[in-house]
Formats: sequence, structure tokens, C-alpha cells
Amino acid sequence: MGVLGALYFTPEELELELKWIDEHVGGKPYGVDVVMPAKYEGADLGDAEELVGKLQGMIPAEHRKFLEDLLQEHGVEPSTESASKVLLGWTDQTARPQVEIALKHPIALLASALGPPPADVAELAHQHGVKVGGLASNARHARKQVEAGVDIIIAQGTEAGGHTGDVSTMVLIPEVVDAVGEDTIVLAAGGIGRGRQMAAGLALGADGVWTGSIWLTVDEADTPERALPKLLAATSRDTVRSRAWTGKPARFLKTAWTEAWESEKSPGYLPMPMQFMLIADALPRIARSGDGELVTFPVGQIVGSMNQVKPAAQVVYDLIEEYVESIERLNTITEG
Amino acid sequence: MGVLGALYFTPEELELELKWIDEHVGGKPYGVDVVMPAKYEGADLGDAEELVGKLQGMIPAEHRKFLEDLLQEHGVEPSTESASKVLLGWTDQTARPQVEIALKHPIALLASALGPPPADVAELAHQHGVKVGGLASNARHARKQVEAGVDIIIAQGTEAGGHTGDVSTMVLIPEVVDAVGEDTIVLAAGGIGRGRQMAAGLALGADGVWTGSIWLTVDEADTPERALPKLLAATSRDTVRSRAWTGKPARFLKTAWTEAWESEKSPGYLPMPMQFMLIADALPRIARSGDGELVTFPVGQIVGSMNQVKPAAQVVYDLIEEYVESIERLNTITEG
Repeated sequence: MGVLGALYFTPEELELELKWIDEHVGGKPYGVDVVMPAKYEGADLGDAEELVGKLQGMIPAEHRKFLEDLLQEHGVEPSTESASKVLLGWTDQTARPQVEIALKHPIALLASALGPPPADVAELAHQHGVKVGGLASNARHARKQVEAGVDIIIAQGTEAGGHTGDVSTMVLIPEVVDAVGEDTIVLAAGGIGRGRQMAAGLALGADGVWTGSIWLTVDEADTPERALPKLLAATSRDTVRSRAWTGKPARFLKTAWTEAWESEKSPGYLPMPMQFMLIADALPRIARSGDGELVTFPVGQIVGSMNQVKPAAQVVYDLIEEYVESIERLNTITEG
Repeated sequence: MGVLGALYFTPEELELELKWIDEHVGGKPYGVDVVMPAKYEGADLGDAEELVGKLQGMIPAEHRKFLEDLLQEHGVEPSTESASKVLLGWTDQTARPQVEIALKHPIALLASALGPPPADVAELAHQHGVKVGGLASNARHARKQVEAGVDIIIAQGTEAGGHTGDVSTMVLIPEVVDAVGEDTIVLAAGGIGRGRQMAAGLALGADGVWTGSIWLTVDEADTPERALPKLLAATSRDTVRSRAWTGKPARFLKTAWTEAWESEKSPGYLPMPMQFMLIADALPRIARSGDGELVTFPVGQIVGSMNQVKPAAQVVYDLIEEYVESIERLNTITEG
């Protein structure tokens, strides 16, 4: 089943997206993914609007200068607007309106990245008959999430794209499965984009798998034009876990952007959500101007297997076909 | 089958070890693992003895001072000997005598870490009817190793202990299997210590698995006394890939040692084999004196599952039992 990441949509945009999905999925189940981190700068700074203003004032001049110098060095066009009002859904304040909208639609799953959703949000979802999923990158967090009312743990290894921990999927899945017990559904995530990896995820004890990166290079994706050829060309060694986008460690294509923020000149990273507020204006400018070297995108190590654009349906068929082959081979070896 | 790491033995010690094995394995196959890196400082500096002298002179005073200050800070007893003559088997010059000794014994496998063995060494092994194995952390290296005469690729993910790359086992194995073709045997390594992980490795397309860390906490191991309780207590999050031991990235228990070399005060790492030459004297001193905080040990993320000392035979039985359970579960899910 598909899950829509709500993060990059305003409440109004999210409403439009979900309406479109409802009209096209023919009653099949789908989910929505929000980000409600338990810890971030400004959790106590009032509502979304107040928060944006206050956080903008907290971004050091040194960071703004480093960024503008970097952009200039790579020929990126100057900003034409005043400081961004962008905050995105990386706070409790901004994610709640997204949850309210999502629950007005017939969603089957509300997933939460960066920790479990607040207890009242989980309860609200349950009242709507919606299962709650939580991404976890270690066994202790997975246990805490189950205690907080999460029904489905998405155990995500370090090889995953986007926000990710440091334990690999191979090591993580058995640990999480054992930690949460048999009553909790566990999906394996991180490094899963082929049928053999799907089989491996289940062999590790998961009840299913969760994929992300592989949908960036399907026909139907709206992946940014300058990022797509980089994704297709990248090998599994061309990603890096970096704080240079959101302030928390997340896996991205390794480019001049991630390198610059790790260099000696770098002023270091700002905490979530300030790092993204700092760079939000720059991202569309990087996407359309300059030498292109700063273009990056969140993606997992599976990017090395994403070498051509295919219809989403083909990706599904390929997954299933290779999965079946893998199981048959396993049985041959084991009976051998 | 078991494989003995020759690295930490002098040629004379290795001869004794292999003699002991021959007397105890009742003709069963076993292997020897050497390190013959293609790139290291001093590859052109003459024989082993000349090399040691010259490299010792190349270690900067700043590094020696940083190390001695660090040891003093943690109450480690001062050195009573002159500068170490230790080089270990991390060079072509020192590994060749090990290969010569190994080939006089009825070994079934000569494995090489850090790149393929030189062509003449692979040929010599083949003349003795010995298969050659090579550890590889990416598909390109695996292909190069097969071209260099390697029969068995040990594809090792980043979660592994000791020298390791940055691609996870989940992503790496299908890439390597596809890159080397069906005629080359591939063993999955990195994060494999339980039956579910063995099943996952085979599901990914490997012909077998290669385990390392889990043998550190068996009854029969001679793991250093101060390292053992740390290994038993560690979680999968308590390791780090660090250059602080050999100069090349290798996964170790994260302790004050690895942290100090990453700190702002650190003078940085010396290239292989100089980093180890610098620290070789300190390691036995750390092992027997001081506050113990500097004690570390090469180990993979699977350390989180190594929570009690067991007989080696029990580890083998546990692996097989969980493997069979995993395959049965997979078939139930798939037929479901």
C-alpha cells in the first residue's frame, strides 16, 4: 500500500493531494506520513506563526553568510525574496493541522517519523479506526513507541534515505522484532528495493517491508529535474548521512552541498527546524540555477540499483518476481 | 569451517598455531586469513626490518605526544620499553612469510582482507590446491578481485567488525552477486550472527555466510580480559567506524579511545601501517592498567546480540536452529 509523505505540503496542498488520491485509488487502503519530533528548537515558542518569527531571529549571521558564499561560489542566483517563512511540518505545531486533514480522509495508516506521535494524536487516529505506524532506528525506541500506542513499527536501518539511525537493517530487524514481541507488526526498512531484499527483510523476522527511495525514479514521480540524473548515475557508495538539510542526521546523495557543510569552513549545523529554515530559500534557487553541483536529494544506499526510470507497476512486478525466485532458491539450498 | 586470522602472529607463532589446529581438527577443512593491502606507506621501503626502522622515523612528535597525554589522563602506566618494532602483517613484506608457512599446512582457504592478494600469491595458493578468498566492500572491488584470481568473494557490509566499507550488507550482497556472476562463490558478511541473519544473507543471493564478531564471546576465545565485559554489555549502537587503530576505517567498540582520536585535540590519523606502529606499545599497557576507559576492540554491530559467553558449539547449534525456523516462517508467509 502507498503512503504519502505530508511533510512538504501546506495543509491546503495536503487536502488537494488526498482528494486526488481518494478519487484514484478505488477504495484501496493508503496512508499518510507526518513528522512530529519529540525534540526540536522552539517546541515551547507558541503557535506556528510565532514560532517561525522567533526562530528566524535565532539563525546566526555566520550561518547565513556561509550559505550565501557557498551559493555564490556555485553560481546560484541571488534571493529575490525576504527571509523565508518556511517551517514545514517538522514541528508539533505544523504537523497537527496535517493530521486533522488526513483523518478527514479514509486513510488506513498514520505513520510518524522521528519518534512516536503524541499520545493524543495516536488516540485520535485510533478513534478514526486508523492504525498508527512509527519509524524506529533502534530497539529501545521501538519499545517506547509501542508503549505510546504505535501499532506498526517501521524498523529502519542506517542505509535508508532521509532521517536514519546508525544501526544497519541486517542487525536492527531481529533486535526490534524481539524487543516488541509478537503482537506488534514490524516492517523492515532501509536498503530494500529488490525482491531479494524483501525476502531478506522477512527472513530477519519482519512481517513486511517498507520502501522509499525506489519510488523516486519511477515514471510517475515528480523528482526534481536536476536531481533525477544524479540519482540514476549514483552508486551505493554515493550517499552520506548528513545534518546539512534538517539539522538531524539524514541520508542524502553526497554532493558539493553535503561536503561543504562538513568542510573546515563550515559553521556547523543548526538544530531542527532551524537548519531547514536557513536553507529553504536556497533549495529552489539551487534547483534552477548555478553549476548544479550543490543539487542533492534524500535517498538511501539502494540508489545504486536505481539505474533506469520505470513505471511504478513494473517496480512492483520486479519486486514480486525476484522475491519468488529468492524463496525458491532458499528452499533449494536448505533442502540440498 | 573455521578461518584463523594470521595478522597478530609472528611467523613462528603462526607455525605453532597451525600445528595445533592440524592436531585437533581431524582432517576437517580450515582456512587462514592474511592482510596484504595494495596501498600502504612504505610499500617501496625495502624488507620488513628496514621498513620498520624507516617508518618509525616518520611518526610525527605531535602524534606521540597526543598519545602519551591521552594515556596519562587515563592513568595508564608509562612505557618501559623503547619504540616498538611491531609492524604486524599489514604489509606485503610481513604477510608473505605468513603465506609461506600457511601453505605448508593442509589449509583449504587462503583469505585476504584489504584487497586481493598479489597475483603470484594467488597462483601459489592455487598450485597448492588452496582456494583464495577476498574480502570486498563494494561491487567494483569484488569484480577486480575475481579478475585477480580470487575464487570466493566475502562481501562485507559496513556493519561488520574490523576493516569495513560504508555500504550495508543488505544493499551490498545483491550488487556483488550480480557483479561477479554465477561462477564465483559469494559469502555474506557483516551483521551476521544469528540464524535469521544467515537466512537473510542467503535470501540476498549469497552462497553462504561469514561470521566474525560472534566468536569473541565464546568460551574458547582468548578475548582480552578487560574487553570481554564491554563486548557483553554493548548494544548495536555502541560501535564506530574509526581510523584510530590501523589508519584505515575499521569498526570498533566506541570508547574513550575512538572518541579522543575524533576530538578537536586529535592530531588526526597516520596512514597504515604507521597508526598501529604508533599505538602498538600502548595497547598492552591499556589492557592491564589505568581506568579502563580506553579499552576498545574490533567488533561489528552484532555485538548487541552477544550478551553471554557460550561454548562455540552452542553458537553453531543456535545459528542452525534459528535458520531453520526462519526458512519455515518464510515459507508459511509466502504460501499464506
